Amino acid sequence: MQDESIFDELNEECGVFGIVGHPTAAALTYYGLHALQHRGQESAGIVSTNGDRFHIHRDMGLVTEVFSTETIERCKGTVAIGHVRYSTTGASELANVQPLVFTFARGEIAIATNGNLVNGDRLRAELEAEGAIFQSTTDTEVIAHLIARSREETIECAVKEALNRLVGAYALLILTNEQLLVCQDPHSLRPLSMGMVEGAYVFSSETCAFDITGAEYIREIEPGEMVILDDRGIRSERFAPPAPRSLCSFEYIYFARPDSDIGGINVHSARKRMGVQMALEAPVEADVVTGVPDSSISAAIGFAEATGISYELGLIKNRYVGRTFIQPSQMMRERGVKMKLSAVRKVVEGKRVVMVDDSIVRGTTSRRIVQLIRDAGATEVHVRISSPPVKNPCFYGIDTADREQLIAATHSLEEIRRAIGADSLAFLSPEGMLRGIGRESQEKNCGHCLACFNGDYPTVIEQELVGEGQR
Amino acid sequence: MQDESIFDELNEECGVFGIVGHPTAAALTYYGLHALQHRGQESAGIVSTNGDRFHIHRDMGLVTEVFSTETIERCKGTVAIGHVRYSTTGASELANVQPLVFTFARGEIAIATNGNLVNGDRLRAELEAEGAIFQSTTDTEVIAHLIARSREETIECAVKEALNRLVGAYALLILTNEQLLVCQDPHSLRPLSMGMVEGAYVFSSETCAFDITGAEYIREIEPGEMVILDDRGIRSERFAPPAPRSLCSFEYIYFARPDSDIGGINVHSARKRMGVQMALEAPVEADVVTGVPDSSISAAIGFAEATGISYELGLIKNRYVGRTFIQPSQMMRERGVKMKLSAVRKVVEGKRVVMVDDSIVRGTTSRRIVQLIRDAGATEVHVRISSPPVKNPCFYGIDTADREQLIAATHSLEEIRRAIGADSLAFLSPEGMLRGIGRESQEKNCGHCLACFNGDYPTVIEQELVGEGQR
Amino acid sequence: MQDESIFDELNEECGVFGIVGHPTAAALTYYGLHALQHRGQESAGIVSTNGDRFHIHRDMGLVTEVFSTETIERCKGTVAIGHVRYSTTGASELANVQPLVFTFARGEIAIATNGNLVNGDRLRAELEAEGAIFQSTTDTEVIAHLIARSREETIECAVKEALNRLVGAYALLILTNEQLLVCQDPHSLRPLSMGMVEGAYVFSSETCAFDITGAEYIREIEPGEMVILDDRGIRSERFAPPAPRSLCSFEYIYFARPDSDIGGINVHSARKRMGVQMALEAPVEADVVTGVPDSSISAAIGFAEATGISYELGLIKNRYVGRTFIQPSQMMRERGVKMKLSAVRKVVEGKRVVMVDDSIVRGTTSRRIVQLIRDAGATEVHVRISSPPVKNPCFYGIDTADREQLIAATHSLEEIRRAIGADSLAFLSPEGMLRGIGRESQEKNCGHCLACFNGDYPTVIEQELVGEGQR
Amino acid sequence: MQDESIFDELNEECGVFGIVGHPTAAALTYYGLHALQHRGQESAGIVSTNGDRFHIHRDMGLVTEVFSTETIERCKGTVAIGHVRYSTTGASELANVQPLVFTFARGEIAIATNGNLVNGDRLRAELEAEGAIFQSTTDTEVIAHLIARSREETIECAVKEALNRLVGAYALLILTNEQLLVCQDPHSLRPLSMGMVEGAYVFSSETCAFDITGAEYIREIEPGEMVILDDRGIRSERFAPPAPRSLCSFEYIYFARPDSDIGGINVHSARKRMGVQMALEAPVEADVVTGVPDSSISAAIGFAEATGISYELGLIKNRYVGRTFIQPSQMMRERGVKMKLSAVRKVVEGKRVVMVDDSIVRGTTSRRIVQLIRDAGATEVHVRISSPPVKNPCFYGIDTADREQLIAATHSLEEIRRAIGADSLAFLSPEGMLRGIGRESQEKNCGHCLACFNGDYPTVIEQELVGEGQR
Ligand SMILES: Nc1ncnc2c1ncn2[C@@H]1O[C@H](COP(=O)(O)OP(=O)(O)O)[C@@H](O)[C@H]1O
Ligand SMILES: Nc1ncnc2c1ncn2[C@@H]1O[C@H](COP(=O)(O)OP(=O)(O)O)[C@@H](O)[C@H]1O
Ligand SMILES: Nc1ncnc2c1ncn2[C@@H]1O[C@H](COP(=O)(O)OP(=O)(O)O)[C@@H](O)[C@H]1O
Ligand SMILES: Nc1ncnc2c1ncn2[C@@H]1O[C@H](COP(=O)(O)OP(=O)(O)O)[C@@H](O)[C@H]1O
Ligand code: SF4
Ligand code: SF4
Ligand code: SF4
Ligand code: SF4
Ligand SMILES: [Mg+2]
Ligand SMILES: [Mg+2]
Ligand SMILES: [Mg+2]
Ligand SMILES: [Mg+2]
Repeated sequence: MQDESIFDELNEECGVFGIVGHPTAAALTYYGLHALQHRGQESAGIVSTNGDRFHIHRDMGLVTEVFSTETIERCKGTVAIGHVRYSTTGASELANVQPLVFTFARGEIAIATNGNLVNGDRLRAELEAEGAIFQSTTDTEVIAHLIARSREETIECAVKEALNRLVGAYALLILTNEQLLVCQDPHSLRPLSMGMVEGAYVFSSETCAFDITGAEYIREIEPGEMVILDDRGIRSERFAPPAPRSLCSFEYIYFARPDSDIGGINVHSARKRMGVQMALEAPVEADVVTGVPDSSISAAIGFAEATGISYELGLIKNRYVGRTFIQPSQMMRERGVKMKLSAVRKVVEGKRVVMVDDSIVRGTTSRRIVQLIRDAGATEVHVRISSPPVKNPCFYGIDTADREQLIAATHSLEEIRRAIGADSLAFLSPEGMLRGIGRESQEKNCGHCLACFNGDYPTVIEQELVGEGQR
Repeated sequence: MQDESIFDELNEECGVFGIVGHPTAAALTYYGLHALQHRGQESAGIVSTNGDRFHIHRDMGLVTEVFSTETIERCKGTVAIGHVRYSTTGASELANVQPLVFTFARGEIAIATNGNLVNGDRLRAELEAEGAIFQSTTDTEVIAHLIARSREETIECAVKEALNRLVGAYALLILTNEQLLVCQDPHSLRPLSMGMVEGAYVFSSETCAFDITGAEYIREIEPGEMVILDDRGIRSERFAPPAPRSLCSFEYIYFARPDSDIGGINVHSARKRMGVQMALEAPVEADVVTGVPDSSISAAIGFAEATGISYELGLIKNRYVGRTFIQPSQMMRERGVKMKLSAVRKVVEGKRVVMVDDSIVRGTTSRRIVQLIRDAGATEVHVRISSPPVKNPCFYGIDTADREQLIAATHSLEEIRRAIGADSLAFLSPEGMLRGIGRESQEKNCGHCLACFNGDYPTVIEQELVGEGQR
Repeated sequence: MQDESIFDELNEECGVFGIVGHPTAAALTYYGLHALQHRGQESAGIVSTNGDRFHIHRDMGLVTEVFSTETIERCKGTVAIGHVRYSTTGASELANVQPLVFTFARGEIAIATNGNLVNGDRLRAELEAEGAIFQSTTDTEVIAHLIARSREETIECAVKEALNRLVGAYALLILTNEQLLVCQDPHSLRPLSMGMVEGAYVFSSETCAFDITGAEYIREIEPGEMVILDDRGIRSERFAPPAPRSLCSFEYIYFARPDSDIGGINVHSARKRMGVQMALEAPVEADVVTGVPDSSISAAIGFAEATGISYELGLIKNRYVGRTFIQPSQMMRERGVKMKLSAVRKVVEGKRVVMVDDSIVRGTTSRRIVQLIRDAGATEVHVRISSPPVKNPCFYGIDTADREQLIAATHSLEEIRRAIGADSLAFLSPEGMLRGIGRESQEKNCGHCLACFNGDYPTVIEQELVGEGQR
Repeated sequence: MQDESIFDELNEECGVFGIVGHPTAAALTYYGLHALQHRGQESAGIVSTNGDRFHIHRDMGLVTEVFSTETIERCKGTVAIGHVRYSTTGASELANVQPLVFTFARGEIAIATNGNLVNGDRLRAELEAEGAIFQSTTDTEVIAHLIARSREETIECAVKEALNRLVGAYALLILTNEQLLVCQDPHSLRPLSMGMVEGAYVFSSETCAFDITGAEYIREIEPGEMVILDDRGIRSERFAPPAPRSLCSFEYIYFARPDSDIGGINVHSARKRMGVQMALEAPVEADVVTGVPDSSISAAIGFAEATGISYELGLIKNRYVGRTFIQPSQMMRERGVKMKLSAVRKVVEGKRVVMVDDSIVRGTTSRRIVQLIRDAGATEVHVRISSPPVKNPCFYGIDTADREQLIAATHSLEEIRRAIGADSLAFLSPEGMLRGIGRESQEKNCGHCLACFNGDYPTVIEQELVGEGQR
């Protein structure tokens, strides 16, 4: 989408889906990707195999645009993996459309990744120094090189060796004509679940893809786990020692679909509880509560319920805005935020409004929305953010911008309030957030990454990156 | 959209937008149509004039697909009208893309209509008997013929003469190189508002188009009113004696965007109050309330607020579902409702759920959604419909299907409940609905059409049509 | 095509194809239109019927772009008509895509026309005065109005009445659910042939469409003839008294495909003989003869053969030039003629070149091509035009431009020679041309229109038009 | 194109174009590629640089479809390379769209290739064994790997080292942000010329691209030559010892555009002289000579001129056939050859026809065309092929099919004559062909590859390939 300059949204990188042992593997992958569409709208791809050779279809566009009945049918075989991608860079080139497909000494291999490597650039440089060439800007290609260069006997071992060189977030599907390997990084930064439908194993970035495919949820892929599916069936191995799980808390806050469960916790419910926590931490006297559709609706409902203030649709999101092909861009820009969001004048006019949003990154969107609500006649606008202030860049796949662009990294609460033009402003505390999610105690495997809030990165961070973050 | 067979939705015909006296008339019309997109996704068109000749651009597709910066710029002039169209027929031919443009004895004329004539077929037959030919299946073409055949001196008088032969619902924009005529049927069945932006008059089916164009709302076009805009300025005339206003109540119930106001009443607020009324009329003991996004969210919020039951996102609507170009239709069909809606298992599992929806037409959608919620583990599903049972067909532009397909026309409440598989079912009473909208007293110009509920059609109905309805 | 400003080509209006009594009528029409594509690349359409109702598919674009296997299959029935259209106006609107389809008192009617009415504007004005409205700028719509307004009992009689009001060129296919009417104007200005394939009658603007459909040629439709095909079989009637045939000589000169026969005379052979005549009338000493592909290749071959000068490919036409969708127009213009034609340097360098072309209209193309050949090193360029000087506008469907733009209308031979930069220039005499075509004697029904050469129009010409011509 | 099954055409792989030092480098590359379009219609791409970073645009489709004014303008910089590709495989994947772009230790590199490596598969296997991964099936990627793995100091040296491992045909453009390297294989199998326009150097597979860009031809790139263009200007080096030039004779016979010169010899003229040679070697008594448009027109003209038999357009090629997007393939297939070629009945009926064609590969096309001419009434059909019998597969980029599919490899002249249904058949002798081209003496650097005729491959051939050829 080209409206990046208008809104300071967070950008998730990708969604992955895989299936083994189903007669219409590609069709189910199509459904799965359709359910994961919110995780990436730039491109979509499916690679399937009948054990013999790959069938590949991928292109720029939405799932429903990239695929047709015909192209799905051409993706034969009982095993398939798929990918949807969100690009953070304008220069979205064909070369980045995943799954990437390679041939190497052991034959064909297709890889679909969700996440981001902290040491991707270093690995890339090292590989280049050894003579490697790169056609895309994806980490996926780095991983492929590592696998190909391994001297290990089996693909599994080669993959394990490769993964052990990676630092960062990755939920990986690796397909050959013989096997599907499903890998989760040692910190489990990105969600990756396993389910089953009609005897076939399915894997998905979010459980919402299970519903549409008719699959039953089984469990999450564990930190450092590699699930191997082949002729011999399914088995699980570890490629890294167990580390405490550090699931990206932004998955609950913003990315995941409200109907997905992560780690057994429903996203909508978590968000609603965050709204409740927000109400406990920073109540305010007001006439109406409104969310910013769609991401903060759940939190706003929770806030309204907890405070007893009336929940209203104070803002409407135009459902056709994002799907423009020929975007009359000059015109759009000039009208800015209004093409996407409208304030409901009759709802906010003469009212004290609580606007609940999920997060503030650069602050520009919040400022625009507050203005919109004021222009529609609100007498007061109180902003409640159902997550803590973002003060540190993310190195795990979320495009939060550099540190100096993060308004909370460089401004006090009061400065931010003034910058966005709110009458009052409060962020949820990290504790409140964890309580909202439902993780009060620090159970095994239940931790979250909070690095962008507290700077406590679960992995080593490359020195250059730290610099970058602190610039 | 091709999912007509899966869902029994009501289909609105169209949205119209017009502007006089603005240097970028076509660009503002583009924004206006974009805001009216929910009223029709099949085709879009703009006709503009600089007083000299028409500039026309129209095609099948969404507003953002049909127009580009370039085509908008080619639509020169300070006056423009636009149209978005929803087709109820599969055979959606180019010939039906509005505004229709004609040349006739007095020059060029472009017409954009929202609504449906009761006597359209009879007029068509009469005109054909007199030698008229038709290229489209629209009422707009009937109106054009009547205008062209008038012996009146001026276009205004010709239009008045023509309008006096029409029976039914129509909100009309008629453009020539000299004038814009804005006409509202004598019963004001479809909404049509006037606003102003930077000295230019704007007209729109819904006020949500004013916000995006920066226009201020002035007033509704009155029943039987014709507003004339030309060199001499703006003036209002009547082409029909004042009749009591009978605005389609389904505009509040379902069609209009929540952020639009009709007759000074905000649509979301009206819906929310209908939900409150529903709670008063048919409360129920339950654990959670959920709406069916997007249309019944407002009513569900109201119901929850009034009953004190927790409002939840129990159903999620996939936002990418409607926007498919190459629709893998066989596959889609097979997965049916699931591509569009998902139940949020964790929210409804083990719960007694109140599902609030806006209306029941054929009953098939309701049955599917109830099933979805049950499959997700709800122990009870109580359906509350925030409008009365639809027992009569609409002849004013809403595709409610024939009488025998209307489940409430042929089934008792208990039968419907069983048919849709609900544990309990209640419809809102007509009185409750009017109270919700905010029309308790019967003030002048404030009546609504309730014909599809009570059979009391505001206009004469052609004998054949009645037959059709009663078949 | 947007290169109109670069080349002063003649533009033919259309091609028509019809078939009655074949199980795959629409598919054969598709093939027929494909063979007629050179007569119009702007839009294509097919209307078929199974005797019950029309199946319509039409859009802007080439035949192969407009239709797919699927859309062809949806055009059910054993009877079909089709149309390809060349637009001479930039504002090529959807409304002009033929066949036009109308409903009127007697049901559905579809009309496809090739040609142009001399009194089209007057009829249009008369009809408008009687209250008619027009949506297109085609004569076809005028004809439809006349038919609809007729008080005659049968469609056949109504059509006859209508045709008797027309003056000009028209080859017409008129389809209802009961009949196909095939009509040729009283002067037979445009070609229209009848053939037969597998028991089905076919009709086509050119016989090249018979080859591809596997049809055998039967005969031409006669001047003033109406062929009627319906349940009762085929029969021929006259709607006008026999007038001498005046077939457009430009069909032989330029429009028709070389493999078509018109009136039993092959187009390539006629052109070659015109080249021979040219050689007899205006021989020249030179080293090579070259044609301007594709239209004057045949004549150039004839000229070379008759003079004994070597025939060479001195000019090459880029076969991809015309088929651009996104035309980088500024860039194209700047490179002009070179995108379309290249001189073959090694062939013309240091040579005395005879460039044979089919006609000169405005003279701009000729000037550019002469320059191209000189730039490539030719020492002399002798231009031989295988038709007489065009001095009068055409009112029968050929866009020759207004009289004052016709270089031969306002300049002497010597002036033209200088204007185009040729070393010598000769046009073919009218007698030479007729001899080339093979029409020396003035046999019955074998005459040609030569009006644009000699001003002798076969029909009455409206006074305004004459004025226009003489401006 | 999907008509591969209908016609047994030879398929050329690619065309390349490059320019250094022009303010509108990408625009000129666009024009150049447009002129080279006949060498590849599957995909097109341009990579430009301003010395700083690459600008890339590439996609499936024709040059005019892939690029727009906007995308051309986005390709900034004074240096650019471009590529058009013909794919021989149905599975034409995005990954094969050239120029391929890589990053490696020394930065960005883009490579465009025309030709085919004999040892491509072996190199690929060796590289894979060393851990290389491949995303495309192109030789270009093999070359990139070799360059990246070189330990040489400079890119130039790395490229030289890489090229020394290649065996086969390649005309290469290698772009970095600092340099353009232009390389010709040691046998000069594929044409590659240098020219100059407004002070900028241009390089092109064919000289026809010079005309349109306004460039003057300078010279051919020599066998084993590497031209280096950078800040320091232009210089020429050798990466391989001089070997005798062995230019693919099929470039003259079939691939190149008639207006191109190769090695100073015009293609049309060469073809015409081959036709003359054919007439000398195998004259025949007949009434008309016809070529098969477009490839054998020149030879047919020569044959006619030399024999004195009349040259005619006996076959017409439908100019719209190749450019189909939605190809109604079942239907097309069924009509087969007729969609593409028509015989001109009046020209061949009752005549003894000489059909001159450029080559016979599998024989299926020839059989179909002979049949077409017979069906149109020819009494005799004499086939004259203006090249020798193709008896050996090509390993240098021409998809001649495997040996056993080459009709001349397994059949005698008489058998072929019978197979194609001709009354007589003759092939041009190798000597006649060379004489036609104009290479009688065996001057230095003027030899041709004749391997597919005589099995004398200019390079070593991998053992497996020979096997394949002899299967
Ligand atoms: N169909 C849906 N219904 C409700 N929420 C959704 C749906 N799809 C995605 N979401 C949630 O909305 C988020 C994006 O929200 P939104 O506020 O609309 O976009 P943005 O904030 O990027 O403008 C998603 O990441 C997800 O949590
Ligand atoms: N951007 C929007 N946000 C919320 N509601 C909307 C929006 N646009 C339209 N609506 C409402 O939703 C109705 C259509 O609702 P929905 O339930 O999504 O479709 P359907 O019932 O046809 O499946 C519209 O007619 C309008 O009242
Ligand atoms: N496939 C074909 N082969 C040869 N000639 C053709 C073919 N199709 C059409 N023509 C002839 O070429 C004419 C158009 O010729 P051309 O010179 O290419 O175009 P223009 O003169 O408009 O640039 C057609 O009207 C027809 O006579
Ligand atoms: N514009 C052109 N005019 C004439 N000949 C051309 C043109 N473009 C390409 N050619 C020649 O025609 C050859 C292809 O010829 P053709 O016979 O039409 O195709 P095929 O034999 O593959 O069906 C090209 O390789 C080239 O030599
Ligand atoms: S740093 Fe923030 S956004 Fe990134 S993974 Fe951790 S919690 Fe998620
Ligand atoms: S009948 Fe019903 S749907 Fe139709 S206008 Fe009246 S209230 Fe609206
Ligand atoms: S005037 Fe000329 S172009 Fe027109 S129909 Fe007569 S001969 Fe043809
Ligand atoms: S083998 Fe034949 S086709 Fe291949 S390069 Fe040599 S001459 Fe050309
Ligand atoms: Mg949001
Ligand atoms: Mg709904
Ligand atoms: Mg021409
Ligand atoms: Mg050929």
